[in-house]
Order: sequence, then C-alpha cells, then structure tokens
Amino acid sequence: MKIERDLLAKNDALAKDNRHVLEHQGVRALNLIGSPGAGKTALLEATIATLRPHVRMAVLEGDQATDRDAQRIARAGCHAIQMNTGTGCHLDASMMARGLQRLELERGTLVFVENVGNLVCPALFDLGEHAKVVVLSVTEGEDKPLKYPHVFRAARALVLTKIDLLAHLDFDVAECIAHARSINPELEVFHVSAKSGVGIDAWSTWARGS
Amino acid sequence: MKIERDLLAKNDALAKDNRHVLEHQGVRALNLIGSPGAGKTALLEATIATLRPHVRMAVLEGDQATDRDAQRIARAGCHAIQMNTGTGCHLDASMMARGLQRLELERGTLVFVENVGNLVCPALFDLGEHAKVVVLSVTEGEDKPLKYPHVFRAARALVLTKIDLLAHLDFDVAECIAHARSINPELEVFHVSAKSGVGIDAWSTWARGS
Repeated sequence: MKIERDLLAKNDALAKDNRHVLEHQGVRALNLIGSPGAGKTALLEATIATLRPHVRMAVLEGDQATDRDAQRIARAGCHAIQMNTGTGCHLDASMMARGLQRLELERGTLVFVENVGNLVCPALFDLGEHAKVVVLSVTEGEDKPLKYPHVFRAARALVLTKIDLLAHLDFDVAECIAHARSINPELEVFHVSAKSGVGIDAWSTWARGS
Repeated sequence: MKIERDLLAKNDALAKDNRHVLEHQGVRALNLIGSPGAGKTALLEATIATLRPHVRMAVLEGDQATDRDAQRIARAGCHAIQMNTGTGCHLDASMMARGLQRLELERGTLVFVENVGNLVCPALFDLGEHAKVVVLSVTEGEDKPLKYPHVFRAARALVLTKIDLLAHLDFDVAECIAHARSINPELEVFHVSAKSGVGIDAWSTWARGS
C-alpha cells in the first residue's frame, strides 16, 4: 500500500538521523519488542540492578496509556521517560528523536527502549537503534516465531522470559528456538527469569555490548 | 490523523454491511482479541468441545503467517478458515466480509473470529461482529487494562485465561478486574482454564448468546 510505504520511508529517514545522533553521542540503544505481559519491564528492572555499578543507563518507556512502567524503572534507580501513544500501536523514529532529546544523554550511556506491548507493529519501524530485541515469555507458546515472523527476522536477539514457570507449562524450549532460528539463523538467544535471576548476567553482558 | 480517520470510516461502512449480512443470515459472530499466547485458540478448542452437541459453529482465524491455528480448530472438529495478514496487524471489515462468504454459513451458526494476536490494533476495527471479547491470560499482569485501555473499552466481555497457573504467579485477580471495570463498568468477566476446563461452561453459555 502506497500510504504505508511512504510512512515507512519517512520513518526510515528519521531513524537514520537518530542513528547518526547516537553514534555522535557515543550512546548504545536497544529496542525491546514483545507482547503485553511478556516481561519487558521486569527484565529491565533485573538488568538495571545488574549493570548499575558498571554503566550509565536510561529508559524510554512506550505505552498506550499511564506512566506505570516509567515509575517502576525510576524505583529501580534508573532515569526513565514515558511516551504515551494513545491509540497508537508502536513507537516511531520521531518519538525516539524527541525521547532522546529529553533524556539529555551523556557519552557511554546505554539506552533501553521499551516499545508498546505488541509483537506485530513495532517490528516494521526502525528507531535508529543498534539492535531490536524480541522478548517472548514461555507462557506464550513455542509457535509464536512462525506465526509472527517479522519481529523475529528484524531482531538481533531473543530473550525467553519467565523460565521459572517452565515446570508448570507444556512449552518446548528447543522447538521454540528452532522455529526462531528457521526465520533468523543469526539470532542470539538468552533464557532468563527476572524472578530467580537466572540468565540475567549473560543477557546483561550482551546488552551492554561488551 | 486524516489518513487514519478515512481508513476507519471506510472500515466502519463495510462493518455495517457485514452486520446486515449477519442479521439477515441469523448468524452470531464474536471477535476474540488478545495478545499472542493469551490462549485464544485453546479457549476456542475447549468452547467447541462444550458447544458442539448444541450449536453449529465456524471459526475465522487471523494470523500474520501459517495456518497452524486453523488446523488446530479443524482437529477440534469445527470448520475453520485461515486468513493471513502478512505484515498486517489486525483483521478488518473487508477481510471479515471475504471470510464470511467463504464460510457459506447456515442460519443459527455461531462464528468465532480469532483476531491477529495483538492487544492494540484490533480494538479500533469494527468487523460487524455482535461483540468484541478481550482475552487476557493471568501470566500477563493485572495492569494491562490500564496500559491498553482501548480494547477493554471496546469489548463486551473479558475472558481471563490460564487460571490454573494462578498458584505460581503474583497476579491479583480482583485488582485486574477492578482496573478493567474502571475503564468499562459493563464488562462481563469470565475466569477460565482451557487446561482444567474450569469456567468453560459459563463462558460458552454467554458466547452462545443464550
């Protein structure tokens, strides 16, 4: 559809500007994408606790409504800005540009963008981030990479969350990863539980880019 | 945004046509909306098993890719058609019209539409259905009605799924329902587990419209 193509082309141009700004500022930005309730905010809380002694961080929170997630991140001890999209279903590059300006970032900051809870639309919108990260909870079923392939193709890493619940579920971890890698063979995969702390170190090291 | 308003106005006109067709055919249609992995297909499998002796049913399955859900519904013994949206994030009224034509419905049929897994975009698109039903699993967190209010406002019923997992989660059912009813005081609420069968009868009776 031409309207959609024009919209995405305009977004891509703004994303390119964001990428230049981030590079110039020496700032790394990761764009976390997952369904509502995939555990994105809990993952960030655990990541912040792990990385806080080592690196300056900031979070851009996207939601349709409320500033609940930004409040949770602030309580975890990290600077956070909430961006509400109203009926909108994703963050776009112009929102990212405004968010980065408001954050007033110092060199070396690691920025996490928590996109609107949605496994579908955010996959199409480049924000100028260094990498997209898809966050999938093991309660969602192992077929999701096949049914929602675009975000798995666009992402550099997959974080499988809530693995503390595996004992109570019929979820085949190996099958889920095989489905994800059939779409994107290069995908890095992390298994984490924000509740127990399992896997948070390995994920945080990758997130930091070191 | 004008483009969005035009798009929605066009959709609303087509939805009105669908509504007339459904009324003329004596067919009831419910539009199930929820995140990927909320348990929509499992809910339908359990509902079909319960209602099959009593009412003719058919299912329109929406997904970005694959016909896995339509296959599951067919194995449950119900006629199903899969509609793939590609990069699209929701079903719209024109897809609904094509789906209804392909189903060749008999009078008295109960049609379930399983929308694309997405708690955000499908809320805005009227398909001409009798009611929208929001499907939320208890693994997703009790704050979701506040963060994604549009779908809770648009729905006539909320089905809380996977309640067999409540013992392993920090999920406050009463708080979730209070949040949902703060947005939509008229919302009917059902608590179900497709796994154990709890609550499926009450939900199925409502779904049937009797």
